[in-house]
Amino acid sequence: MRNIDVKELAGKVAAGDRRALARAITLVESGRPDHRAQTAELMAALPRPARPALRIGLSGTPGVGKSSFIEAFGLMLTEQGLRVAVLAVDPSSARSGGSILGDKTRMERLSRDPRAFIRPSPSQTHLGGVARRTREAATLCEAAGFDVVLIETVGVGQSETVVAQMTDLFVLLIAPAGGDELQGVKRGIMEMADLILVNKADGPLKETAMRTCADYAGALRLLRKRPQDPEGYPKAMCVSALEGSGLKEAWDEMQSLAEWRRKTGHFDRMRAEQARHWFEEEVRQGLLARLTEDRHARVRMEELGREVAAGRAVPIDAAARMLGE
Amino acid sequence: MRNIDVKELAGKVAAGDRRALARAITLVESGRPDHRAQTAELMAALPRPARPALRIGLSGTPGVGKSSFIEAFGLMLTEQGLRVAVLAVDPSSARSGGSILGDKTRMERLSRDPRAFIRPSPSQTHLGGVARRTREAATLCEAAGFDVVLIETVGVGQSETVVAQMTDLFVLLIAPAGGDELQGVKRGIMEMADLILVNKADGPLKETAMRTCADYAGALRLLRKRPQDPEGYPKAMCVSALEGSGLKEAWDEMQSLAEWRRKTGHFDRMRAEQARHWFEEEVRQGLLARLTEDRHARVRMEELGREVAAGRAVPIDAAARMLGE
Repeated sequence: MRNIDVKELAGKVAAGDRRALARAITLVESGRPDHRAQTAELMAALPRPARPALRIGLSGTPGVGKSSFIEAFGLMLTEQGLRVAVLAVDPSSARSGGSILGDKTRMERLSRDPRAFIRPSPSQTHLGGVARRTREAATLCEAAGFDVVLIETVGVGQSETVVAQMTDLFVLLIAPAGGDELQGVKRGIMEMADLILVNKADGPLKETAMRTCADYAGALRLLRKRPQDPEGYPKAMCVSALEGSGLKEAWDEMQSLAEWRRKTGHFDRMRAEQARHWFEEEVRQGLLARLTEDRHARVRMEELGREVAAGRAVPIDAAARMLGE
Repeated sequence: MRNIDVKELAGKVAAGDRRALARAITLVESGRPDHRAQTAELMAALPRPARPALRIGLSGTPGVGKSSFIEAFGLMLTEQGLRVAVLAVDPSSARSGGSILGDKTRMERLSRDPRAFIRPSPSQTHLGGVARRTREAATLCEAAGFDVVLIETVGVGQSETVVAQMTDLFVLLIAPAGGDELQGVKRGIMEMADLILVNKADGPLKETAMRTCADYAGALRLLRKRPQDPEGYPKAMCVSALEGSGLKEAWDEMQSLAEWRRKTGHFDRMRAEQARHWFEEEVRQGLLARLTEDRHARVRMEELGREVAAGRAVPIDAAARMLGE
């Protein structure tokens, strides 16, 4: 990726050129310092979309049927003429080697749909590193004219928080289970959810799914009311990716909620707060990156690190010296 | 805490003055920028102990009997004439309000023992903040002549990693449970353990404890061999804090392992690596602190943050400008 004409690339992305979009995301995900400067230029050059896409975060532990849900839900949207992009934040790929969206065949039909764009999770991601770049990838998809941007994540560590910080709606996908299982979902994640969807509400699991749904509806009512919610939200609903049931209803709820937030100003306020958050996070990460990228700093860190390791200096005092220079 | 004569304080700590030690730890835990400078001075002024204390990290989820274990284990050590300090890293106190070691009555006899020093967990701790200061607190206890420094933590989030990075031995305390429960302990934590102690090996739970111990012993054998371990380590053993059984054997194992590591150089190597780690972490945290403590930086962050929130700048480009100034 040499000699990128960033302005030209921004123009192509805005014109809906899929190859340009893919190239732009690759640039954005790159860890190279020169690419970071180009990324900043690219993002600044991007025209603002006429209407923001709806960014939907989707979280669920392995086994709840996330891929099947995204495939069925995405196809329903593209059939309505909507353009759908699917991105992923995968905190586990670095460790386990397992990667979500790593294989497009997991969503075979959707990946062949000309109205859909599926971007596999970057390999060797670590949270807070490439993960935060998913926000820029979502902005690129938005500029390229996608109506819905789905950002998938697995329920591990802090990935939900990261995804909730870059989306307009946060959907939690749950498997049908006994009442005791409710405790498996951490309270912090429940508090982020706008919509809880109990998947696999079909066949022999249908009744269990309905009970699970009632349990979650009850749990949601116990949470503190948030300013960004109209009466009756957050909600719990049953869906079946397999049979396609409940998907339209879920989409209706998402649209109603988003519409209410648009009218009341919460949509814009949340986006503004998120933008500020990511700006601050970029500054923090950029500061830290200097320690390894700036040659002088790196050499000095190395020197002082040796002093400390040899016991000739204490960590906190050596750090004060490093920072004082 | 005004007009601290840091040199004098360091001298008193090194002379074993308990009140000076408590004051020094309070200084170290303080978040105030001027106290940070004094902390660096204090740590640099501290004479090196003739022989390093044995720093033992102790982790276990609530309910495994950590307090009872520390009380029984600590009293056994003080009866041998050893001086024992107990510190805590508590990642949960900020959220749940529950604090480990918050109440000395939990270890009533040990807290009255003149050879023991128990320091409650600082309230409103957040991991990576005050938690890393526990390392300095341990160094202070070491300088004050304590032979053993126990650092307790609950099995939540990354607190084990933090504690393992500041101790010579890492002990995992486990409750007796069915074989399936073994999976509840994360692999990453198993990999940090030098010794797994199955507590409550008494009364009706004794047999379960022995089975649990055998399960863990088997699991430990499957882990990759680490350079810092002699043959046969890490080990799993049964103990009963209630009956006092197994405590002497556990202490023997800890001493053998520490002795082997001292002879083979792993003890010093691990300490050197840890010192380097904390130096780097101090530099990182110190850099980030500037963003909020330096007036000019804070005002500029605020300005650019408003630009970004208003949509007049994009996060990544505004961050590049902030960093370029």
